[in-house]
Amino acid sequence: MADPRFFRNAGPFALGRLAEIGAAELAEPAQADRVIRDLAPLDRAGAEELSFLDNRKYLPQFEASAAGACVVAPAMAERAPSGMSLLISPKPYRSYALIAQAFYPVPPAVPGTGAGAIVDPSADVDPNAEIGPGAVVESGARIGPRTRIGPNAVVGAGVVVGADCTVGANASLTHCLIGDRVTIYPGARIGQDGFGFAMDPAGHVRVPQLGRVIIEDDVEIGANSTVDRGAGPDTRIGRGAMIDNLVQIGHNADIGAGAVIVAQAGVAGSSRIGRFAALGAQAGVAGHLTVGDGARLAAQSGVMRDVEAGQEVCGAPALPIRQFFKLQATLMRLLKNKGD
Amino acid sequence: MADPRFFRNAGPFALGRLAEIGAAELAEPAQADRVIRDLAPLDRAGAEELSFLDNRKYLPQFEASAAGACVVAPAMAERAPSGMSLLISPKPYRSYALIAQAFYPVPPAVPGTGAGAIVDPSADVDPNAEIGPGAVVESGARIGPRTRIGPNAVVGAGVVVGADCTVGANASLTHCLIGDRVTIYPGARIGQDGFGFAMDPAGHVRVPQLGRVIIEDDVEIGANSTVDRGAGPDTRIGRGAMIDNLVQIGHNADIGAGAVIVAQAGVAGSSRIGRFAALGAQAGVAGHLTVGDGARLAAQSGVMRDVEAGQEVCGAPALPIRQFFKLQATLMRLLKNKGD
Amino acid sequence: MADPRFFRNAGPFALGRLAEIGAAELAEPAQADRVIRDLAPLDRAGAEELSFLDNRKYLPQFEASAAGACVVAPAMAERAPSGMSLLISPKPYRSYALIAQAFYPVPPAVPGTGAGAIVDPSADVDPNAEIGPGAVVESGARIGPRTRIGPNAVVGAGVVVGADCTVGANASLTHCLIGDRVTIYPGARIGQDGFGFAMDPAGHVRVPQLGRVIIEDDVEIGANSTVDRGAGPDTRIGRGAMIDNLVQIGHNADIGAGAVIVAQAGVAGSSRIGRFAALGAQAGVAGHLTVGDGARLAAQSGVMRDVEAGQEVCGAPALPIRQFFKLQATLMRLLKNKGD
Repeated sequence: MADPRFFRNAGPFALGRLAEIGAAELAEPAQADRVIRDLAPLDRAGAEELSFLDNRKYLPQFEASAAGACVVAPAMAERAPSGMSLLISPKPYRSYALIAQAFYPVPPAVPGTGAGAIVDPSADVDPNAEIGPGAVVESGARIGPRTRIGPNAVVGAGVVVGADCTVGANASLTHCLIGDRVTIYPGARIGQDGFGFAMDPAGHVRVPQLGRVIIEDDVEIGANSTVDRGAGPDTRIGRGAMIDNLVQIGHNADIGAGAVIVAQAGVAGSSRIGRFAALGAQAGVAGHLTVGDGARLAAQSGVMRDVEAGQEVCGAPALPIRQFFKLQATLMRLLKNKGD
Repeated sequence: MADPRFFRNAGPFALGRLAEIGAAELAEPAQADRVIRDLAPLDRAGAEELSFLDNRKYLPQFEASAAGACVVAPAMAERAPSGMSLLISPKPYRSYALIAQAFYPVPPAVPGTGAGAIVDPSADVDPNAEIGPGAVVESGARIGPRTRIGPNAVVGAGVVVGADCTVGANASLTHCLIGDRVTIYPGARIGQDGFGFAMDPAGHVRVPQLGRVIIEDDVEIGANSTVDRGAGPDTRIGRGAMIDNLVQIGHNADIGAGAVIVAQAGVAGSSRIGRFAALGAQAGVAGHLTVGDGARLAAQSGVMRDVEAGQEVCGAPALPIRQFFKLQATLMRLLKNKGD
Repeated sequence: MADPRFFRNAGPFALGRLAEIGAAELAEPAQADRVIRDLAPLDRAGAEELSFLDNRKYLPQFEASAAGACVVAPAMAERAPSGMSLLISPKPYRSYALIAQAFYPVPPAVPGTGAGAIVDPSADVDPNAEIGPGAVVESGARIGPRTRIGPNAVVGAGVVVGADCTVGANASLTHCLIGDRVTIYPGARIGQDGFGFAMDPAGHVRVPQLGRVIIEDDVEIGANSTVDRGAGPDTRIGRGAMIDNLVQIGHNADIGAGAVIVAQAGVAGSSRIGRFAALGAQAGVAGHLTVGDGARLAAQSGVMRDVEAGQEVCGAPALPIRQFFKLQATLMRLLKNKGD
């Protein structure tokens, strides 16, 4: 179904193999050889396609689906239409993601240096890395195996990029050390000076920013996002953090492992975001704060104080979510009492 | 008046010709041969320059203006000073825009491939397209006639760009199909993966994003804006939509024809924005919502529910505009009653 | 201490020389020859390192510090531990910034044109300018002495960049005139068309944007920020203004000298920001407004009316800061009275 101009289907796969890939259990082991050729949503899938059910709201589509196979949670299995093979998983969406990666893997690096790319002789580029056309790799930079540097991207002097990374088109990296399996999307800016200067009526004076950006393994940083390097300490993006497009991460910030930061959110300088915390779109965290592990900030939240681990906040200034909704209800009552 | 280092005046034009171009009526047909050499604002225009009046607030400037010609609505015409030739139009600003385009047309493509550009041999580039210096056009991409690809821009594999388009410097396109007369401003990022993954404490798992971005004719997408490709369905930008700088459009979003999205606004995944709807600067629309045709979202609105066609909303969370202003008034009263 | 892969220490310096550089006074003139080799924070500095104290909250660290030298305000000097040399300054952070610049100066331009750079023969590039690899300099552009144009950056036709400027990787400049000692960070977009068109149900009509962007001396513009050119008048960024990442400046805006605009803030078209005004992160200023000299807008403020000189505002819609906090207190009381 995916447009063949852009995507290559690595299938077909036998259902048994897909169960393994997806860490799921085949409901009827005898169906292990059933051939699955592609992925499709429940309402469009046919007999050789696999779909998934992750939300009760789609149960009617599930019950009416012609999909040949479907990944489902154990509790939903009995609602399956006849003829549908089931892959049972406690985490159907995760299983589906793994299977989808098998059908449509990220294209591997094509080792070598593209036309017009400029690689400094002192750079250490793994022979199995791919340097795209027009890309620039400056002095002393190191690029790991199977890493792809996109067209017209710039890897600055001394930068280290690990193995199996992708750096998108027109992205730029400077003053940073990047782990393995990291994806930097097109146009992201990593490692430029933080916003630090001594304010003065006679003219602000720049304070040299002497730290780096440390990006741990399995991180993603979205298109046109910006991550400034530290002022003295480093800016750190913890393992597996997912950062969306147009996000700003200020100098010295520390983003916990597995944190999720949605588009256009911002984290000001020296703030710490806990492990697996989630920041909604356009949320902002002021400087020098701590957002605890697993905390959740609704979209457009404005956080001006520390947020405890596991807490959910909303609004600007941000309130605990129950208080926020109670305040909204109070305001709506107030409004009603004034008549309309 | 425009700096000749940057702009080339294609005039002079006879007034009769400008009336045709602007879909306006010359008040005095005998003045059709009057020569107009340039554009200028009412308070600075001279006898060979054309201006326009679109807002009653500038009536005093209109009455005192030395402009040789002016585009005005019928109702204002009688207020014109003597000596001023009038182009009468029910839509003076639109007429002025058309005339201004005639004086200062977008520079035409200069057919050919600039120095240092890298065009894959399998790409299909129209002989009348212009590929700027350092630009990269990857395998199988198609570029239509009179389209200009800016310096150091990147057109990814399989991408289709129609006729008479402009792709700005350092912009990047991937997994997208683009119509005719589309303008992509510098640094815009089109078609990268949407923000889709199965969240998991053991490590989030990327879900392959198998859709595309479809951009219809006459669309504009501003500098450093980001439009993610669909997860399975496509992301679509409808005909004539105008998108400003630093805007985020999430995967599977559908932006209606003629919609206007001002700077730093964001539309989350799978939301639909109606035809000719308007989103103010820094507004946000949460995921899976519908904003109706012609709806208007004030700047910084936070939309968490569907918005009906034609409705105007403001605030975060967004309220119908009358309620919003009533609530503000109520709060100000509350504040006053507490004394100061 | 700074990672030598990325930073080169220009020291050591004699303490007497650092006092001169920092416009500070050496408490014990006899210590003028003491050698200082690097910078470090109070809690980690050793006998040959210099630190600073700018905030009473760090007094305990100051009193316990092993730093060889420290920049302090006169009032704190008596709290210094024995063995620490003192540089007395009324503005310790400013003095520290100047000293830090001496230790870690911005690397000078390396005159010449990098591999793969494309410089139009009609461009006027100073022989002491550095044009990075893959950069593009178009016809008629002028680049001043000691200015560095980053890798894959684009300087458009007719653009003027003064002396001692830095233009970051992948940035693009068009229709602009830039003074001396200006820093444009990576991916910034300067001079593209403003967001101007005649709205029309039959299709919006672009209004040619015939102004420029004027950037005065000593300005900084952050990574991936966007500054649109004027519609007829110019967009102007006043001397010494500091603009952070992902900021949007609309057409015809006028940013006063020394103004500070933090990340993800936006200034809509034709608004004027006063000298040394400060806009917090994610703040927004609507179009055609005036924000007075020295005014302060808190993060996420939404400014819909003029702000007087020196005024501090907060909230959306923005209120004077005292009113804002009073309103918050009132709302919290309201919430409490409803019980929980």
